Amino acid sequence: MAFRFRPVDGSFFELFTQQAQHLTVGAGLLAQMLAEGADRDDVARRMRDAEHAADETTHEIVRKVNSTFVTPFDREDIYGLASGLDDVMDEMDEAVDLILLYEVKSLPPELGQQVEVLQRCAELTAEAMPRLRTMKDLADYWIEINRLENAGDKNHRRTLASLFNGSYKTIEVLKLKDIVEALERAVDAFETVANRVETIAVKES
Amino acid sequence: MAFRFRPVDGSFFELFTQQAQHLTVGAGLLAQMLAEGADRDDVARRMRDAEHAADETTHEIVRKVNSTFVTPFDREDIYGLASGLDDVMDEMDEAVDLILLYEVKSLPPELGQQVEVLQRCAELTAEAMPRLRTMKDLADYWIEINRLENAGDKNHRRTLASLFNGSYKTIEVLKLKDIVEALERAVDAFETVANRVETIAVKES
Amino acid sequence: MAFRFRPVDGSFFELFTQQAQHLTVGAGLLAQMLAEGADRDDVARRMRDAEHAADETTHEIVRKVNSTFVTPFDREDIYGLASGLDDVMDEMDEAVDLILLYEVKSLPPELGQQVEVLQRCAELTAEAMPRLRTMKDLADYWIEINRLENAGDKNHRRTLASLFNGSYKTIEVLKLKDIVEALERAVDAFETVANRVETIAVKES
Repeated sequence: MAFRFRPVDGSFFELFTQQAQHLTVGAGLLAQMLAEGADRDDVARRMRDAEHAADETTHEIVRKVNSTFVTPFDREDIYGLASGLDDVMDEMDEAVDLILLYEVKSLPPELGQQVEVLQRCAELTAEAMPRLRTMKDLADYWIEINRLENAGDKNHRRTLASLFNGSYKTIEVLKLKDIVEALERAVDAFETVANRVETIAVKES
Repeated sequence: MAFRFRPVDGSFFELFTQQAQHLTVGAGLLAQMLAEGADRDDVARRMRDAEHAADETTHEIVRKVNSTFVTPFDREDIYGLASGLDDVMDEMDEAVDLILLYEVKSLPPELGQQVEVLQRCAELTAEAMPRLRTMKDLADYWIEINRLENAGDKNHRRTLASLFNGSYKTIEVLKLKDIVEALERAVDAFETVANRVETIAVKES
Repeated sequence: MAFRFRPVDGSFFELFTQQAQHLTVGAGLLAQMLAEGADRDDVARRMRDAEHAADETTHEIVRKVNSTFVTPFDREDIYGLASGLDDVMDEMDEAVDLILLYEVKSLPPELGQQVEVLQRCAELTAEAMPRLRTMKDLADYWIEINRLENAGDKNHRRTLASLFNGSYKTIEVLKLKDIVEALERAVDAFETVANRVETIAVKES
């Protein structure tokens, strides 16, 4: 058996994985929210629950950082990664909440594509988190997230252009723009997470 | 007389208290800005003065951190708390400024409730700051701020819904939304301050 | 020859200077974007190239920080300065991109003044970066940037007021406000850079 230079607490990796799994649930609920004939109140309620569960995991990581003597990587990086994952959830929750709150009747089709990007980001992130333990095979993950963020950005710009092409009433543009921007921030937040993972991996290599 | 483990500079606590007192003044001016028949130019001028005074205190804390060898708690936490208090002032100042600048005629009644939340947050924060010296009895403060932030968030969502219920012209919605969002960021900024106090208290306990 | 207390790597200063020169290019392209009869597609393409070049320089600084044993000043300050310069570019790029994307027909004349402020900020920053090596004659720079930020802020408020004075259709206000706000964030980002330079200079003095 190989000698391990520093003892590490395995469960940080489990908690990060758990956090990313909450994001998979959240992205799935976002997709449901856009579906024709969705019970929006019900989906929004489940989103709220998912967001609370994610919050709990984030707090557990923070508590663990503060009470653990030897951490698997720098404290500030653990904190940064946990809060980065938490930010993704907050933005997805915001999008769901605004769709309910603004009582938006028709959503532009481009929104569905953006939510697909988010679902793919969530899956990749959930698959990558356990690999933090060995720091192996992580490059594929952050490269693919960066590619998805580029695709999401193009999609976002297309959506904005379509909002302003004259087919929506100004008050609807005002509502939809908020929702569209929350989705874009969610994609960006996934990229921030991937960048943090890259930084950690580079430091530890 | 009890043995003190590390010598501390008392006046950090006084400066934080001073900063929080500026916030009490700012929240009061915000309430005056909403009052029927207010001299908005005059209130906005006094808000600007309050904001400058708060800035001065923030700079004094930063200078003090940089020139003090032993600080009562971690330098980065002192810096974070000072800049957190400063952020609250900036958001309240922004709200006052926009009310003046946009020449908003009628403000939704929900704004008054949000400003009451801010006034209560400011009082609680000003009362809590001196307790940083002993780190005692702070939990009540951050729990209550978290409760107020929840109430503020519900109020914010109600306000947004009312902006979009058809009773305002779109151009007015555009103006009011900016103001409403500045108030919400101010409430959030109070919560950030409370979270930082909690972090400091946990570390020091 | 004077004794140097710590060996420093000269090329950090060159990289910061390079980053600031990208900003001069960016501010110039922004000015071209506003010009009557501009080929907006072409200007936007060149802006994208400038933004990528700036990104490259930022990454080079980050790589260099991570691989250098003795840095000329604190690692976190180097990182903060590099990301601050990068933020300016992102905001200027955003402004150019939105002008293209929203197909804005007529731009308020105040925008031209704001871009002049940005061009002046970029020049001053590019001139100041090489002086980080000796930490001399930097106060003039940050004082002037602070003055320009104040002028920019007054101009921004005047622009917002003019957007809401009834001469623009609401949908145009919605578009123009996004552009105007991106410009204001760019000015603010220059001030953040100047504040970071001041912090570094104070620490090193």
